[in-house]
Amino acid sequence: MTLSAPQIEFTPITGAIRALAMDAVQQANSGHPGMPMGMAEIAAVVWRQHLRHNPTNPGWANRDRFVLSNGHGSMLHYALLHLTGYDLPMDELKKFRQLGSKTPGHPEVHYTPGIETTTGPLGQGIANAVGFALAEQMLAASFNRPGHAIIDHRSWVFLGDGCLMEGISHEVCSLAGTWKLGKLTAYYDDNGISIDGEVQGWFTDDTKKRFESYNWQVIGPINGHDTAALEAATLEAEADSERPALIICRTTIGAGSPNKAGTADSHGAPLGAAEIEGVRKAIGWNHAPFEIPADVYAAWDAKVAGAQREAEWNTRFAAYAAAFPELAAELKRRLVGELPAGFAATAEEFVAKVQAKAESIATRKASQNAIEALAPSLPELLGSSADLAGSNLTHWSGSKDYLPGVVDANYINYGVREFAEVAIANGVALHGGYIPYTATFLVFSDYCRSAIRMAALMHIRQVMVFTHDSIGVGEDGPTHQPVEHTASLRLIPNLNVWRPCDTTEAAVAWIDGIERADGPTVLALTRQNLPFSARSAQQIADIRKGGYILSDAADAKAVLIATGSEIGVALAAQKLLAESGLPVRVVSIPCTRLFDLQDAAYKAGVLGSGLPRVAIEAGVTDGWYKYVGLEGAVIGMDRFGESGPGGTLFKHFGFTPERVVEVVTKLV
Amino acid sequence: MTLSAPQIEFTPITGAIRALAMDAVQQANSGHPGMPMGMAEIAAVVWRQHLRHNPTNPGWANRDRFVLSNGHGSMLHYALLHLTGYDLPMDELKKFRQLGSKTPGHPEVHYTPGIETTTGPLGQGIANAVGFALAEQMLAASFNRPGHAIIDHRSWVFLGDGCLMEGISHEVCSLAGTWKLGKLTAYYDDNGISIDGEVQGWFTDDTKKRFESYNWQVIGPINGHDTAALEAATLEAEADSERPALIICRTTIGAGSPNKAGTADSHGAPLGAAEIEGVRKAIGWNHAPFEIPADVYAAWDAKVAGAQREAEWNTRFAAYAAAFPELAAELKRRLVGELPAGFAATAEEFVAKVQAKAESIATRKASQNAIEALAPSLPELLGSSADLAGSNLTHWSGSKDYLPGVVDANYINYGVREFAEVAIANGVALHGGYIPYTATFLVFSDYCRSAIRMAALMHIRQVMVFTHDSIGVGEDGPTHQPVEHTASLRLIPNLNVWRPCDTTEAAVAWIDGIERADGPTVLALTRQNLPFSARSAQQIADIRKGGYILSDAADAKAVLIATGSEIGVALAAQKLLAESGLPVRVVSIPCTRLFDLQDAAYKAGVLGSGLPRVAIEAGVTDGWYKYVGLEGAVIGMDRFGESGPGGTLFKHFGFTPERVVEVVTKLV
Repeated sequence: MTLSAPQIEFTPITGAIRALAMDAVQQANSGHPGMPMGMAEIAAVVWRQHLRHNPTNPGWANRDRFVLSNGHGSMLHYALLHLTGYDLPMDELKKFRQLGSKTPGHPEVHYTPGIETTTGPLGQGIANAVGFALAEQMLAASFNRPGHAIIDHRSWVFLGDGCLMEGISHEVCSLAGTWKLGKLTAYYDDNGISIDGEVQGWFTDDTKKRFESYNWQVIGPINGHDTAALEAATLEAEADSERPALIICRTTIGAGSPNKAGTADSHGAPLGAAEIEGVRKAIGWNHAPFEIPADVYAAWDAKVAGAQREAEWNTRFAAYAAAFPELAAELKRRLVGELPAGFAATAEEFVAKVQAKAESIATRKASQNAIEALAPSLPELLGSSADLAGSNLTHWSGSKDYLPGVVDANYINYGVREFAEVAIANGVALHGGYIPYTATFLVFSDYCRSAIRMAALMHIRQVMVFTHDSIGVGEDGPTHQPVEHTASLRLIPNLNVWRPCDTTEAAVAWIDGIERADGPTVLALTRQNLPFSARSAQQIADIRKGGYILSDAADAKAVLIATGSEIGVALAAQKLLAESGLPVRVVSIPCTRLFDLQDAAYKAGVLGSGLPRVAIEAGVTDGWYKYVGLEGAVIGMDRFGESGPGGTLFKHFGFTPERVVEVVTKLV
Repeated sequence: MTLSAPQIEFTPITGAIRALAMDAVQQANSGHPGMPMGMAEIAAVVWRQHLRHNPTNPGWANRDRFVLSNGHGSMLHYALLHLTGYDLPMDELKKFRQLGSKTPGHPEVHYTPGIETTTGPLGQGIANAVGFALAEQMLAASFNRPGHAIIDHRSWVFLGDGCLMEGISHEVCSLAGTWKLGKLTAYYDDNGISIDGEVQGWFTDDTKKRFESYNWQVIGPINGHDTAALEAATLEAEADSERPALIICRTTIGAGSPNKAGTADSHGAPLGAAEIEGVRKAIGWNHAPFEIPADVYAAWDAKVAGAQREAEWNTRFAAYAAAFPELAAELKRRLVGELPAGFAATAEEFVAKVQAKAESIATRKASQNAIEALAPSLPELLGSSADLAGSNLTHWSGSKDYLPGVVDANYINYGVREFAEVAIANGVALHGGYIPYTATFLVFSDYCRSAIRMAALMHIRQVMVFTHDSIGVGEDGPTHQPVEHTASLRLIPNLNVWRPCDTTEAAVAWIDGIERADGPTVLALTRQNLPFSARSAQQIADIRKGGYILSDAADAKAVLIATGSEIGVALAAQKLLAESGLPVRVVSIPCTRLFDLQDAAYKAGVLGSGLPRVAIEAGVTDGWYKYVGLEGAVIGMDRFGESGPGGTLFKHFGFTPERVVEVVTKLV
């Protein structure tokens, strides 16, 4: 599989990319020059001849989306943004990888104009790109009208061997084929090299055949340095509207580097001053670092064409808005992520109803009721499950499964693909037009944990419905009992993790998740029924503070803190203790992150300064000491579960009112 | 893709499986009857005609390994074990899924004789099976001699649509093809149904083509209820020694159930009394629940044949031992997982050397030095990295990459496949003969987290070398900076997570990981250099207690607790504080789990009862309150990092001696 070095015609167009990449990496003294140098021709063809964007308005709704799935080659993307005219001045390129710059080591959405998603963790960029293409296709199906193809853009992705080796590439590319995402085009940087060297010792897939098995259009292998071949391949990809395209591009990593091209040496380290001199000679680039001649700038500049493109679209959108004013207004609202005007009222009404109904049901069922109540007025709500709809209870009466061409669909069947689900949903959310909610068993949050993290890092609105949340799972046993997952998800910054104790908390958690525009929400929900608690209006309002006094006692001698299914245990213990003359308070903390964000006075008021505290949660205990301190106690479970009926396990592992009474009595 | 129902000849042989499965699920009132009923013929052919095992000795070294990757169908496996003569009496089948039984909801290794690995989390069973086959092939290459094929067994795996949709199936099957695991045979239960219904809406892969792209032998689709076709396909698979085989078996889920066969209704719930009556009629099984006629037992019994098979192998092994006594002794030692006699001495000597050398290097480099020192006397040490060998520093001077046929190899190149790496290593460890160590960046522990959990659950010896352990990663930015990972790995029960502060702690952590026979070890290691600390012999001995006083002060007024790279910060702060007249103690807790296991007196002695405590770790803070309490302080980072040089980031985020001084001064 060793590649014969393809012939390369070095030009100033691609020279600018190669020079910027190697010089910025050299200046930063860290980074990855090999990929930008190897993909320079591909980038030039896509960005100069096909990508429909507007550098002066990176937020243009109908722009093509571009994703660098091999995100370590970030300098390629920064060079392209700079050269085509985005607000990314040369000074920022000079500060590549420095604190506070707009040019971080990996592309980060919200940091840099024109960066659509944060990449680096391999395989997730292509997943996001599938999400972009899916969102485009679904919005088009629902909003376009004959003669008004108002949503009509392509999604482009660059990826390398690493992305293709990662398991997530299988999940998402399989789905992209099923969904017939014909406007998705992927360029595979087939350079035969990964960090450990020539890939033939660990990567022998027939990638063409593999992608054909996913129902993709596979083009190539072509010479990835031959711009004519690249142009022809891209046109071929664009002509097939039924299948996503993979263009296999044979390239030389670090192309242009006399001594390091074609080797792993060019991958992840500066080339060094001497080699850089050699590159300048080899590619005929006689300019100082960070110096681009005016004619090269002119050849790359996409500002005028981009502005014209957007202006044309604006004209078309005006015609659409004239013909379909309500549709246009609704599309605009959804694309900016604004909730419908009546949402707050609907939400409030629903909570009041739940409180009046006072049902003792499983919180997964309470979640489904919330969806049923909120979804009719939220057409942007896009549900899914990783093949567990009947267990996660993510369907509602208005669920409409998506398959190509389905209009107004609002549900995705992901199959058994948890990582794909959350990562594609990240792409969908970034595209705009949808608020995704995703689902699996809580224990399988491990399968998609990196995508959950990326959602938090990217401030993405996504509600993750993770059911079967403790040993309450029962007979399925320890492989399916998430004893450590709630606690470990709480550790991810910017992630709201809710573990509601009844229908009201579940309703409020759902509403909070939908209204939260700057980050994702996890709902950890039970399989089993939980008792309902009555609340005052103030208590209901306080749920969104993350923690509050659920049941107080005059002259309380201790505080019981619990979440989810253990609230019932705490309340039962409170009753027993009261009967034996020991009044205690019960505090519910359904979302520790939100509670931690409250002011000190509120927290002290809830937790009861000076009182001994006992936390109760059917999971690992470490996280609770920040509330109970060294003097308090935690009733939890620092071991794996067992297979048996849920009720039996709760008794076996000591989650009983009697045990709580025992611990509290000893403590006071 | 709707399957026409294949013709089935119902016999007492397969009737026993169907009846046991449906009756046990019915009695447990939970479980999965559909898969066992659908795979009954496949199971009968494999287990009665091909599997080379010995029910009276499940630990026979050269037995074939059988893995149920679709582990929810556990009753199939329990029925097979019971019928063929393992020590799994009918009483245990009657207690299916009950607490304390040998028949938990999913197959659990160490619970049930004959269960080779714990399955349930989809895709990981096939990964373990690849590990079994890899271990067999590698051991055979190194230990067999002409005329002495002493290691010579097959690995069998059953899997369903779920396993094939999961990303990990791509990673591990790609590798199995590259490794030419010709003795691995997989039966794909192609029943067209997953939990959400008929898979055609979310699973349209051409699986035959996909596996051909991985260089597998693909047989079928065949009728998975046709025992003659199954026999022919299995013989064909056995005849090809170069390629792993996938036999695509078209089956009907719940076959035999008059009203639920072929539908998701038979998948995950009891059939119900009426339907069970219907099955009994349909399959001609006229026996009471849990009643097996003697002739059916006799037809299944594999005890005599198994004992004879093992006896033959014992004879062959005796001949091998006579011809190659040293090899035979070494193989025996490795298969039982006993360390070489001199290991403890080698280890002790190495620690002494490290202590004398007093190097201030990165702990990833210290880890490599440990490997270099220990590996020469540990031929069972099987290293790897997920394409980051040069960054993880997992190679040593004696590393020998494995590819088919390589003798005495001790290193695996996994490519960019973290999940495959840890899950395959789990299979290798369960097989015996190797102690795997695996590696990637700490941040990508998220990609393999479920396999790490499975290692802990299964008590597997595996050392996971996770480098680049904090914002010290620097310029690669927040996608690569594991701020929450060390803390969240600590939450997994039975997982030792070490974050050593220098060469000595790194050496001890490595030794502990190798000597620990009942669970996995994570090493969280730095990219950057760390200062060396001198220690007394007692301090060195105490490292294995997980925490100890690294630097005490007479009349200490406070205690600084730190790990890894923050030990240097703590020691510098201690010095500054001493200069300003405030003596403080520095405690190192490189492994919180081991420290927590110490007796109360030891812990109190180290932590200093009554003294204010400050914990310092460049990561999320929640976990530290169990040591510092509500009165102490934690200097950590409850947010994502940034892209910039590591040193700049440490200052930016406040990990400086000056900040520690400030916090301590305020506290005291």
